[in-house]
Amino acid sequence: MSNEIEIGTGKRGRRAYSFDDVAIVPSRRTRDPRDVSLNWQIDAFQFTIPVIAAPMDSVMSPQTAIALGKHGGLGVLDLEGLWTRYEDPTALLAEIAAMGSDDATARLQEIYSEPIKDELITARLQEIRAAGVTVAGALSPQRTQEHYETVLKAGVDLFVIRGTTVSAEHVSTASEPLNLKKFIYDLDVPVIVGGASTYQAGLHLMRTGAAGVLVGFGGGAAHTTRTSLGIHAPLATAVADVAAARRDYLDESGGRYVHVIADGGLGNSGDMVKAFACGADAIMVGAALARASEAPGAGYHWGSEAHHPELPRGERVHVGTVGTLQELLFGPGGRADGTTNVMGALRRSMATTGYSDLKEFQRVDVVVSPYQAR
Amino acid sequence: MSNEIEIGTGKRGRRAYSFDDVAIVPSRRTRDPRDVSLNWQIDAFQFTIPVIAAPMDSVMSPQTAIALGKHGGLGVLDLEGLWTRYEDPTALLAEIAAMGSDDATARLQEIYSEPIKDELITARLQEIRAAGVTVAGALSPQRTQEHYETVLKAGVDLFVIRGTTVSAEHVSTASEPLNLKKFIYDLDVPVIVGGASTYQAGLHLMRTGAAGVLVGFGGGAAHTTRTSLGIHAPLATAVADVAAARRDYLDESGGRYVHVIADGGLGNSGDMVKAFACGADAIMVGAALARASEAPGAGYHWGSEAHHPELPRGERVHVGTVGTLQELLFGPGGRADGTTNVMGALRRSMATTGYSDLKEFQRVDVVVSPYQAR
Amino acid sequence: MSNEIEIGTGKRGRRAYSFDDVAIVPSRRTRDPRDVSLNWQIDAFQFTIPVIAAPMDSVMSPQTAIALGKHGGLGVLDLEGLWTRYEDPTALLAEIAAMGSDDATARLQEIYSEPIKDELITARLQEIRAAGVTVAGALSPQRTQEHYETVLKAGVDLFVIRGTTVSAEHVSTASEPLNLKKFIYDLDVPVIVGGASTYQAGLHLMRTGAAGVLVGFGGGAAHTTRTSLGIHAPLATAVADVAAARRDYLDESGGRYVHVIADGGLGNSGDMVKAFACGADAIMVGAALARASEAPGAGYHWGSEAHHPELPRGERVHVGTVGTLQELLFGPGGRADGTTNVMGALRRSMATTGYSDLKEFQRVDVVVSPYQAR
Amino acid sequence: MSNEIEIGTGKRGRRAYSFDDVAIVPSRRTRDPRDVSLNWQIDAFQFTIPVIAAPMDSVMSPQTAIALGKHGGLGVLDLEGLWTRYEDPTALLAEIAAMGSDDATARLQEIYSEPIKDELITARLQEIRAAGVTVAGALSPQRTQEHYETVLKAGVDLFVIRGTTVSAEHVSTASEPLNLKKFIYDLDVPVIVGGASTYQAGLHLMRTGAAGVLVGFGGGAAHTTRTSLGIHAPLATAVADVAAARRDYLDESGGRYVHVIADGGLGNSGDMVKAFACGADAIMVGAALARASEAPGAGYHWGSEAHHPELPRGERVHVGTVGTLQELLFGPGGRADGTTNVMGALRRSMATTGYSDLKEFQRVDVVVSPYQAR
Repeated sequence: MSNEIEIGTGKRGRRAYSFDDVAIVPSRRTRDPRDVSLNWQIDAFQFTIPVIAAPMDSVMSPQTAIALGKHGGLGVLDLEGLWTRYEDPTALLAEIAAMGSDDATARLQEIYSEPIKDELITARLQEIRAAGVTVAGALSPQRTQEHYETVLKAGVDLFVIRGTTVSAEHVSTASEPLNLKKFIYDLDVPVIVGGASTYQAGLHLMRTGAAGVLVGFGGGAAHTTRTSLGIHAPLATAVADVAAARRDYLDESGGRYVHVIADGGLGNSGDMVKAFACGADAIMVGAALARASEAPGAGYHWGSEAHHPELPRGERVHVGTVGTLQELLFGPGGRADGTTNVMGALRRSMATTGYSDLKEFQRVDVVVSPYQAR
Repeated sequence: MSNEIEIGTGKRGRRAYSFDDVAIVPSRRTRDPRDVSLNWQIDAFQFTIPVIAAPMDSVMSPQTAIALGKHGGLGVLDLEGLWTRYEDPTALLAEIAAMGSDDATARLQEIYSEPIKDELITARLQEIRAAGVTVAGALSPQRTQEHYETVLKAGVDLFVIRGTTVSAEHVSTASEPLNLKKFIYDLDVPVIVGGASTYQAGLHLMRTGAAGVLVGFGGGAAHTTRTSLGIHAPLATAVADVAAARRDYLDESGGRYVHVIADGGLGNSGDMVKAFACGADAIMVGAALARASEAPGAGYHWGSEAHHPELPRGERVHVGTVGTLQELLFGPGGRADGTTNVMGALRRSMATTGYSDLKEFQRVDVVVSPYQAR
Repeated sequence: MSNEIEIGTGKRGRRAYSFDDVAIVPSRRTRDPRDVSLNWQIDAFQFTIPVIAAPMDSVMSPQTAIALGKHGGLGVLDLEGLWTRYEDPTALLAEIAAMGSDDATARLQEIYSEPIKDELITARLQEIRAAGVTVAGALSPQRTQEHYETVLKAGVDLFVIRGTTVSAEHVSTASEPLNLKKFIYDLDVPVIVGGASTYQAGLHLMRTGAAGVLVGFGGGAAHTTRTSLGIHAPLATAVADVAAARRDYLDESGGRYVHVIADGGLGNSGDMVKAFACGADAIMVGAALARASEAPGAGYHWGSEAHHPELPRGERVHVGTVGTLQELLFGPGGRADGTTNVMGALRRSMATTGYSDLKEFQRVDVVVSPYQAR
Repeated sequence: MSNEIEIGTGKRGRRAYSFDDVAIVPSRRTRDPRDVSLNWQIDAFQFTIPVIAAPMDSVMSPQTAIALGKHGGLGVLDLEGLWTRYEDPTALLAEIAAMGSDDATARLQEIYSEPIKDELITARLQEIRAAGVTVAGALSPQRTQEHYETVLKAGVDLFVIRGTTVSAEHVSTASEPLNLKKFIYDLDVPVIVGGASTYQAGLHLMRTGAAGVLVGFGGGAAHTTRTSLGIHAPLATAVADVAAARRDYLDESGGRYVHVIADGGLGNSGDMVKAFACGADAIMVGAALARASEAPGAGYHWGSEAHHPELPRGERVHVGTVGTLQELLFGPGGRADGTTNVMGALRRSMATTGYSDLKEFQRVDVVVSPYQAR
């Protein structure tokens, strides 16, 4: 049935679904998990797992970006984070993990008021490149014009422009906004851009020439974005919508396949699996990797919204440490809660429903069945 | 799809939605927050923020009414509250904040049994006028005939008639009820009246000549009104319905634009944003301002239902103190829970969805996605 | 829209609603509460409030049946309860209120194994009659044939046959079941019978000649009936369905109006109000009266399911004591939770929505809006 | 109405229902519980209760399999469990019940790494046969080829092939998968196989020649399967779907009636009753029998997913001990929570809705009414 609902006379809205609202159902075929491929490729870059680490200081340092690359995924360094503001942020990371909840927001605001330094951008990217893995860095749309030349000169394979909401048409009378279409056209490297959360927003970002579109709000701030701004885009619907835009744009562009990357709210392996089931090509993961013993956050996780100078909309949250990056991705796992061996879970879910590659798995049957706390 | 539901054979009802059930979704355009206007005008009175303080003793004293006016909003003094019953209610306010929960209702009933004094109505309104801000006072429908002449003589810019449910047609055999239409016609000042919670109730109040209609039940009593009276009008639906009445009445009246003011249940900035998204022109805010360090309630909040002599239907609730009025409205805020910088949140939400003024923002896309506690 | 849902291929079911799922909405008219009548009449018996006490030992003793009658309602004594098993059950009631939770079910089973004595049935009913109030006693369908002659000889004005589910067609090969139609035809007194929870069940009970039909499961056991038997009939739907049967039977019978009495799950005044809004003529109330200081249960409440010898399906629950019977029914009330002044709440809800008598109030507008715990 | 929902543009899914979402409603007829039959027959084997114990070490030992058989049900021994890995697993069972939660998964993995011994399979099955009850043993699809000849030689009446998801078409390039159709055709004994959770999966399993199909995921791991794999098949919908496949296959096969056996998530008697109401012929019960004082788990319950070497997806859960097997099945019960006298509850639910045998009871009316925690 149609999912448009009359909220009141004169206001209608679509019913939208979160990953908690949906589940995958097995059907008549099953498959050997060893026959399942998790390979993913974007532009010329190939990965053995479809996992992109979120550019957040609690998740990615140059070291963890390298480690993830060696595990077959893609690490993305936040080029506006601690590693480009401070020569050695180690003590600050330790302080953030140790501080009390009451002062956390104020202290984060203070720590992040330190200016970004171009020479540190260069140094960090070169460190990653030296390790032989795919190099990717992220800027916000606000800072892209200021720093992108430094980034390109330092050398990146993939360039990520990530904000809570990024549109193809940003209007401002006070400053000259980033013209995404022209910017991406002029660049030599493929760009991943977002978040977008609707068909229209996704389609317009695809038309800028982006190689991938992030779907979601990013930064683990979804919850307080709803409380604070009233904004919420349930991800199952958002991913399915942008995936539909991908198909339509493929036709419109005469064959350009833009990758749909679910970003945010993927707290356990079940959520990750559902992202692919709803149409994602890859996933950008934050909290789930912040739980690694190697993670810079040392069991804590925060996004850039948490230290916004005027309107903080996220919080430093305790996610705990549950295993090594190896254990989180590939096991073995001593926990049954979807936090360890997340790639094994994806592989098994695909096998249980009879699929052998991620692209086909986008067609798997799902049901709507809201999660009920009891 | 239609939202009429068969409850049982022989009884149908509409599906109605609360703000918790809906959320705003960004689309393909974003905007610079500095280009967003929060201006609001009703009759000849202009405001830089669309915020009306609820006429409740926990929120408004003559001093806080003046303070809110200087911040660009509209303070409304409850002319049946402590400030018109007692020469100096300061000690009583302190007592209310200090008393235990068990005796709260009984003691409130006692405190509010003191008669209202016309000379205090005059004095309080003159104090506000002397400060140079827009002057507004509120009476219940039951007391309007007894005190309105005093109010008019003292001088108000806007007159508010507010009850849990106010209709254009009140029937009584025991007393002569207030004839709203005649009363408003005879008055020199614009009248804001409510609460209404349906299209019909709103339309009929508009036909009385009111300048604005309050949508909701007011008084922070929504929860216990449902438990006690079985009455509940989910606000997203109610605001959208009365906004539709505004549009129809605009045509019917040949161009009279009656303001729709969401009143009640706007606990955080996300709820406020959604009120505009559903069609409100302005918001009347209680608990959210009772959290100011200047608020007379000192961290507590109560409405007139809480001390109803026979049928108390609300409670004195602890809302805490989270910052100055300045911080609550405009930040900076050290909290990410939608209680500080609420105007900044509204501005940012409008920018994120690409809107520059409040009237246009009434058309923003929303989705239905019930809030899930986990 | 239709409320039939496909649960799976080959199994369909209606969507059914509880009182928590619905709420009353005010409309364009309001009314003076003093003009509202709560009068109710069944057969020749007139009441000033539409309240029947549930025949349960925690609620009704001969003394409280008399007290409720003097307050204008109808007390019904359980003729299979402690008062007809024991000469003086006072000490046992005290023991039940004092015993620990672990042994409660077993001890209740033991206490209720004492045989029922016809001479006590006679004595208890005569005590009520002597007080000058309407006399009513209840038996279960299983015991009706054994004791009804005693009951009739002792003299009752209204006879209640109440079980968790009572049907017009009870099938048994082991015993001769009660032929309700013949039984009611032969009796001189009007009979109230139930529980029924669907249109069909209600219609068939009406055809037996009953003066009133109880809708619900009775006995406060609704919750564990769902857990234990998988049976649940959400009351908003059940009352609306049986009210539709009342209307159809009125036509079919050429004018016999059978009263629909909501029974069970009416924990607060809001629920009671909704029962009338869904079509009830009167309400049978258990827990809400067990909270009276005069109640025999002394703050505890239990139904006959709680001491079923083989399959206990309810529990002795602590409901507390919140005021006198006078305060519970008519206030004044110091609580805002729908437990005191329940008749004042009904009166005010009717006034707020513009109705002056209970029959008209069955047409009040309702919305579907599930209660959300936050 | 149709239950297909648009999750987003380009992705649709059916609305699926769990047992918590549905409830049984009585109608116009009731019946004497003594006239209700709980008999169930599959192939040549007759049972007086439709209860199959889940092949799990916390539920079934040779002794409890015998005990259940003597009570009229069917015990199934897990032939990959402790009893076929260890000569005497008593001490290990005690250790599992005593160990702390933190190490439980790791220790279970270790204990279950001991190889399965064919001579123990033979000995255990012979012990059950010697007691004169129906003999049944279960293998996973992965181990069936390795051990089935031993099982057949030892002698079983019914053979169970049970995994979280078993399909008629398992694809593997690395190993030769079990050809269910050929395997079942070649066997002399009737086979029960599953889990299946959709119409298609059920129909294809029926076409393999199975005598019964298990519906569900088994092993009490449903919850973590959703969290870990994103897979969830709400059982009310799954049972109704596979029951529809049974009816269609009955026609397609010219009269072969394949039994539909609900497996998993039947925690209380209400859930069990609903399984039949949705179309089940019998139920496979785990946790509900693990609560017996005779159960090997001594108050704990776990499935084979809990000790999966790489991807544990279930946990050892504490279910407590609430009575003897006799009390759990037939009472008397001192508890009102659906854990004792579960067959009495089924019998009473059938009587209350007027049914006398299980096959007819599949047609009972149900409503959709999600369980609301308050």
